[in-house]
Formats: sequence, structure tokens, C-alpha cells
Amino acid sequence: MSENAVFSRNKVLTIDTMNPKVKNVEYAVRGPIVQRAVQIEKELREGVKKPFTEVIKANIGDAHAMGQKPITFFRQVLALCSYPELLNDNMFPEDAKSRARHILQACGGSSMGAYSASQGIDCVRQDVARYIERRDGGVPCDPDNVYLTTGASDGIVTMLKLLVCGEGASKTGVMISIPQYPLYSAALAELGAVQVNYYLNEEKCWSMDLRELERSLAEARKHCNPKALCIINPGNPTGQVQSRQCIEDVIRFAAKERLFLMADEVYQDNVYAEGCQFHSFKKVLFELGPQYSNTVELASFHSTSKCYMGECGFRGGYMEVINMDPEVKAQLTKLVSVRLCPPVPGQALMDLVVNSPQPGEPSYTTFMKERTATLSLLAEKAKLTEEILNTVPGITCNPVQGAMYSFPNISLPQKAIKDAKALGQAPDMFYCMKMLEETGICLVPGSGFGQKDGTYHFRMTILPPTDKLKILLAKVNEFHQKFTQQYS
Amino acid sequence: MSENAVFSRNKVLTIDTMNPKVKNVEYAVRGPIVQRAVQIEKELREGVKKPFTEVIKANIGDAHAMGQKPITFFRQVLALCSYPELLNDNMFPEDAKSRARHILQACGGSSMGAYSASQGIDCVRQDVARYIERRDGGVPCDPDNVYLTTGASDGIVTMLKLLVCGEGASKTGVMISIPQYPLYSAALAELGAVQVNYYLNEEKCWSMDLRELERSLAEARKHCNPKALCIINPGNPTGQVQSRQCIEDVIRFAAKERLFLMADEVYQDNVYAEGCQFHSFKKVLFELGPQYSNTVELASFHSTSKCYMGECGFRGGYMEVINMDPEVKAQLTKLVSVRLCPPVPGQALMDLVVNSPQPGEPSYTTFMKERTATLSLLAEKAKLTEEILNTVPGITCNPVQGAMYSFPNISLPQKAIKDAKALGQAPDMFYCMKMLEETGICLVPGSGFGQKDGTYHFRMTILPPTDKLKILLAKVNEFHQKFTQQYS
Ligand SMILES: Cc1ncc(COP(=O)(O)O)c(C=O)c1O
Ligand SMILES: Cc1ncc(COP(=O)(O)O)c(C=O)c1O
Repeated sequence: MSENAVFSRNKVLTIDTMNPKVKNVEYAVRGPIVQRAVQIEKELREGVKKPFTEVIKANIGDAHAMGQKPITFFRQVLALCSYPELLNDNMFPEDAKSRARHILQACGGSSMGAYSASQGIDCVRQDVARYIERRDGGVPCDPDNVYLTTGASDGIVTMLKLLVCGEGASKTGVMISIPQYPLYSAALAELGAVQVNYYLNEEKCWSMDLRELERSLAEARKHCNPKALCIINPGNPTGQVQSRQCIEDVIRFAAKERLFLMADEVYQDNVYAEGCQFHSFKKVLFELGPQYSNTVELASFHSTSKCYMGECGFRGGYMEVINMDPEVKAQLTKLVSVRLCPPVPGQALMDLVVNSPQPGEPSYTTFMKERTATLSLLAEKAKLTEEILNTVPGITCNPVQGAMYSFPNISLPQKAIKDAKALGQAPDMFYCMKMLEETGICLVPGSGFGQKDGTYHFRMTILPPTDKLKILLAKVNEFHQKFTQQYS
Repeated sequence: MSENAVFSRNKVLTIDTMNPKVKNVEYAVRGPIVQRAVQIEKELREGVKKPFTEVIKANIGDAHAMGQKPITFFRQVLALCSYPELLNDNMFPEDAKSRARHILQACGGSSMGAYSASQGIDCVRQDVARYIERRDGGVPCDPDNVYLTTGASDGIVTMLKLLVCGEGASKTGVMISIPQYPLYSAALAELGAVQVNYYLNEEKCWSMDLRELERSLAEARKHCNPKALCIINPGNPTGQVQSRQCIEDVIRFAAKERLFLMADEVYQDNVYAEGCQFHSFKKVLFELGPQYSNTVELASFHSTSKCYMGECGFRGGYMEVINMDPEVKAQLTKLVSVRLCPPVPGQALMDLVVNSPQPGEPSYTTFMKERTATLSLLAEKAKLTEEILNTVPGITCNPVQGAMYSFPNISLPQKAIKDAKALGQAPDMFYCMKMLEETGICLVPGSGFGQKDGTYHFRMTILPPTDKLKILLAKVNEFHQKFTQQYS
């Protein structure tokens, strides 16, 4: 019994009586560093003196919060759907109106306020299917395999829920990359599954390594029942874009080892580096021929939160399931019905993403201008981040090929490591916390994502506006040198 | 191994390998009857001849889908928040604009596209707290105890997740009313908790009965660890409004037996019957004095989906937690951060519900007119439903005091019961399915909500427009008599 349990012995729900699986959950992206950052912001507002005047948050992939503007067309249609009286107005372009009508006619009572089908609005799922077919050069997509979700998070957790069961040596294992996006470890902890780590190869630009997958799987089979393999591509927190060859290898591996594939492709438009290209797992699967495309089970995830739109607050997303057993699919449909439906405005937004303005439509030019501007700016900032970080002695950083993050390797002096351990802190948490207190910069320590033992990293987003990003990088540079000196 | 497992032996995820807890989930509100209704609608569109020309859905509390119009003010503000350019326009009233500014200034980058704090936008939680204080005659509410949610469903499932743990005789038991809203049984099945049934008293207008609570608890203690007691008031599916006395009794019972209270109060504005009034559990708890208000743990839930607004598709809601252990609260905050945040448009809508137009503001008159019209119409339909159903021989029905549902008791002939059982169907499922095929009316069988053994019911919403509701009730009358004859 903890000490607190004595104080709260009259409570039903205490830290000692609550669900222990929930206690095991960790989520660094909004962890202690971020809570401290919020506190510091408050202190600054209250006039507390600090060695800086503002907190710069580079902890979370939240584009609009960092000043990115929404796509005009998307917001026009959402306004029309919210208040259809506006359809009678002349201030909106015709294509925005026709998209709004298309969405509203598919809503119960022509209102976004009606529950939709639990799997998502029919016509939105059809539009998603056509988008996937275009994206994948004609590989067919059945709208029945598309489930709209409350952000990609919801789809990922739902799929894991279907997969996880068993106890002891037959407990479900799920392979996830290290470093990983901590939604995965959190969901596995909550479900009581075994997290099976495979390490990305930092030396080879965070690529996946077949040998490492084999090692990890063989290891895991000794104590659990590994059933699924998760991949994030483009990668969070590591910013890599996997090659076509690597994706092929992974699919063959999954087929051979009988693993359910989960492909997190929320950054599919966020590819910046020359020579890199996004290849969807679905497309590569079908190009490998029927012996793969008829058998390998795959769920892939997309979201309105990332890419060029960055509409995180709307919680839109979809997942596509391939080769899912029909009985399991029926179970999935039943399961999602308990929560009634994903938010309809998020579904509407997802529809606009997959059914954006086309050449010849009045909004096309503006849409393309906005989209291209955002993606080019991100590409610039990706390059800038990599270049500046690599000039800092003691920091090495892979190119940010895609996504929105850099995950540089930092060398920490032995004394800092010792001091951190004495405080019971991960050394990179110690480092990031110090950086926050001294510079106002909010990063997430690598330990929140997982990393090879004895290595240290932080994750920073490339999202701050260019001028702030430059300040941030300069401050990181300065801080790192000071920190290194101080602890040498 | 099922037969199917042989066919799909190459699949990783099959009905035999999937999470068995998910298999145990049931959700009647969107179950087989509703799936058949959708099919029939499709057949009608394709020209298939039926004894009716349209399907009338009375299976789900989905107001807009049944033709209820959204509140103008709410949708104006949502349009403004979606496309803030409209703030420069003169077509919107000033109070709508100021509400939109109030919400947007609290969003990251002044955009609904930014993730909010996981617990919900600060200013929305403050507005919720003030609403609760007004509603409860000044009982204080701390915004730190308010969590915004993705519909009430999300809040309820999250609270259950915190509570449920243990195995065997120490497995968490959760007391739920029978009949219940099937989200509860579904969530408990998924979490692997023990569902502890207490029966509402149909003879006394579906009131809660202290003796029955005691019986149920004593029974449960023999084989599990009952930790929580859930109440839905006003009731779904049963439409009752609990008296103040009854709520007091329940609170004293929870205090004495050390049960965590979960009060589902999503229908708090839906009270129609004379002499009935909504009493929040929070208010009654505080009126019972400090020995209760300082100790009894309570979570209460609200939603944008019901009441006069009926905005289900936006997935807005909140929960308030009272007397929650601070360490547990920290765990709750961490847990909700994994899913990042509830949908921001739903949060905005929740803000409008708790911060609606005030006397003197330009939108006040229209707002009140719309609100009152909706609630009066619902009251009329509640009365109409009760009256007509009670004229049918073999149907008896309690008054619809509140919420949006009638849950009449139907007597079924022995032969019908036998025929149903021969088909492996619940008798009221057999009855409702026949009604659907013959009349196009879509109801949910009582067995989907739970009922005393040997009794049969169906749930119908009072939401269809009055003319359709009359047709529906006439058809139910006719069908019931025909059915009774046929099987006598
Ligand atoms: C790799 C990855 N997957 C999933 C998500 C979840 O995003 P959302 O739930 O907002 O769609 C994120 C968010 O940052 C992510 O980086
Ligand atoms: C009693 C009750 N609780 C909770 C809900 C969930 O509603 P939502 O998730 O849309 O807020 C409903 C919906 O019908 C309900 O009737």
C-alpha cells in the first residue's frame, strides 16, 4: 500500500485500487516537460523573470498551433456544412458549395448534427476509396474496407484491441519500431499486450533492417505470441522515409512469419528529401503479386491532422483493412458501433482531403498555391533543421526526409548522466528539462520514444515559423555547448 | 476451432484468434434489426415491392436525422469558428461573433484545427463550470474537475477503464440498471468487468428501489468486487425521471456501501411530465451536507447529443469528477492525453450549450423560441406516445416522463415465444423483426437493453415528426393485434 493509500483510505478509487494497466501507460508527447512548459508560460504571464521571454514549443506535431494557416477551401466547405443558410449566399465559390451539398445530402436530416453510420458516412468512404485508388496507381479499393475514425489514434487503438488477447506465453505480442510514436506503447500497456521492440537503424538513416526484425521476432517468440508488426512511414519521431525495397522486405517478412501488418501512413504527403518517395504498403503489397495481395493482412491509417492540412482539432481519419477475415470485420463493425460514430465535421474534412479541388474548378488555383506553399516551407525547414543541428559539436542528426520531426543524437557527458540517474531521471529528460528552464525551448526527450541503451536523443518538430525555428536552433546550439562544458 | 477457422487458417486474425472480450460486446441500438432496416431501405429504392413505402426509424435517439432543426445560433458560431473570414461579414449577429472570438482566442493559433489541451480547452471548461454552478443553485464547480469528452460515450468508457481491474473473485463489478443503455454492458464486456444488474421497478414507473440495490449488491459481493454504481437519469431506455428522494437514497447507499457513483445525465433538459424535475446528483450530494459532499466519489456526464440541441454528430460532451483522489486524477489526465484531445468543434458546441444567448443579446429571442419549440414538441410527442400505446390491448406503457424513449411492456402469445426460441431468437427480437418486415417500422427489442426474465418490451424513440409518429403508433397498434391473433 502506498503512503497515499493511507490518507485516501476512504476512497473507492485510489492509485492502489485503480486499473494497473492504466498506470503503466506513458505518453511523453504530453508528459512532465510539457506540463512544466505550460507552468512556465503562466509564470511569464504573471511577470516572473526568466532568462527568456517566451516558451517555444517544438514538442508536438500541431501545425496550426505553430501558425500554419488552414486551407481556405476546406474551411469554406466546413462553414457551409455548419450553417447551410450560407449556401444561399454569393460569397462562396461554386465548388465549395457543391462539396458542401455532397456531404450534407449524405447526412441524416442533411445535418452534421446527426449520428452517421458507425463505419462512417457512405459517400465519404467511397471518396476515400477513389482517393486510395488514384494514390496507388489504380490498385482497387473497396469502400467496405474503409472505416472512418476519430483521428488516426482511434483507428490504431481499435485495431490493436481486436488483435490483443491471451495470457502468459500466449499473450499477444505486437512489434513496434524503436524509436516509436508513444501512442503505440501506451495502447499496448493499456491492453496488457507485450510490446516487442525492433530497432530502427540510426546509422542507415533510421531504415528498417530485416535482420533486426528477425532477431526481435525470434526473441519475442520465446515468451509471447507475436501477431502484428507496426510500421510508421514516414517516421515519427525519426523523420525517415522507407525505401520501396525496404517495404517489400517487410511485407515478405510478414507473409513468411504470419504477422498482421499495421502501416501508419499519416505523413504520406510529408516527403521532402530528394530521391525519397512515399510508397504505400497497400500499393507495394499488390505489386508483389497475388500470393501476397490475397493473403497478407494489412490495416493502414491516415489522418486529417498531418500532411499539408494539419487539421488536428477536427479528429478526422480513416483506416483501410485488407484481407481481413469477414467474421472479424463484422466484429470490428460491431465494436465501432458502441461509440456511435466518428465526429461528422472530421469526416467532412477527411472527405475534402480525398476529394480536393480539381483543375478547372474555381478553387483549384488557390488550393494548390496554399498546399504547395505549406509543403515547400516544411521542406525548407526540414533542411534548415538538419543543417544547423549538424554544426553543433556533440549533436548528430539524420536528414529529415519526411514527416515533421528531427530526432538528433546527443552526446551527454558522464557527469550529467550520473547526476540525472541520481535524480531518478532519464539523462535526456534531465537535459531537456534543463534546456526548458534555461531557454524556454520545449522538446521531448528521446527516452519518451525509446532508443538504444546508452544513446540519447531529443525530438523536435520542424513546425515553428522559420524565424522562430532559427532562434530555437541557435538556442539549442548554445545550450548544448554550455551544458557539455558545465558537466565535463 | 470453428468451421470458419479451417477456411481462414492462413489468416493471423480470425474469429478464433481475436480478442474474446470484443466478441462478448453487444450493441443492440445498431444491431441486426437496424442492419436489416438499412437493407430494406435499399430494396425499396431498387423497386422491391413491400407492404409499405418507407422505413420509419425509431431505434436511435438521433434528433436531426428525424428532422429536428439545429439551433441557429449554435450553427452560426460554428460557421464563424470554421471560417473566421466570416467575422468580417455583416450577416452574423454580434453575440455570435463574440462567442466565436471567445472560442477562437482559446485555440492554438486561433484555429479549431489545433489540438487542444487533452482535458479540453481551458475557457470551455470554465464556462462548463459556471453552467454547472448556475444549474445547481450555486454549488461550486472547479473547472479542474471538468473533462471535455468525445460525446458522453467517451467519458463513460474512460471512467470505467480507470475503475476496472482484478481477476476472479476480486474482479471489479459495476452495477448498472436493467433495462440499461447498452453502452454500459458493451464497455464492461470489453473491459472484462463483471456486470452487476439491478432492476428498475416497472410497476413504479421505472424508479430505483433501495431494496433492489441492496439485493443486487449482496448477490454480487459473493463473486466479485463491486466498486461502482451507474445511474441514467432521465432514463434511457425507460424514460423515467428519478425523484429527489430516490437520488438521496442512492447517494446514501453509495456512501454506506463505498461505491463510486456514475451519473449519466445527458437528458438533463428532457423532462416533460408534470411534477417531475431534473435533480443533478451533484446538487443533491451537496445538499446532503459535508459528510457526503466531502466523501462520495461521483462522475457525472453530459453531452451535446441530446436535450434541445440534439447535436450527435459533433461528438461533444463533458464529465465532472467530484472527490476524485488527486493521484487518480493525474492518471486520468495522462490517460486522456494518449488520444490527444476531444474534437474541437464538439468542444466549441459544448461551450455554446453552457454559454447560450442571454437576455438582452441579439440572438436571445430566436434562441429561446427554437429551444422552447423543440422541448414542447417533445413533451407533446411523449404524451401522445404514452396515450396511444396504452390503448393497445396487450401493450402497457409507463409515462414518458423524460429523455426520448418509451419502453412499453408487450404481452406475447406462448406460440410466438416458442417459435422465436426455435429460431434461437429472443421473443421480442422475433416480434420486432416481424414488425419491421411487415410495416417498415424499426424498433429495438427490449432484450437489447435487458429486462426481467419472462417480460418483453421494445424501445421506440419519440423523435419522428408528429405526423410520422402517429402513423408509426397506428401501425404498431395494428401490427400488435394482428401478431397476437396470428399466434394465439
Ligand atoms: C505516427 C503518428 N500516428 C498517429 C498519430 C495520431 O494522429 P491523429 O490521431 O491526430 O490523427 C500521430 C500524431 O502525431 C502520429 O505522429
Ligand atoms: C443514456 C445515454 N448515455 C450516453 C449516450 C451517449 O451519447 P453521446 O456519446 O452521443 O454523447 C446516450 C446516447 O444515446 C445515452 O442515451
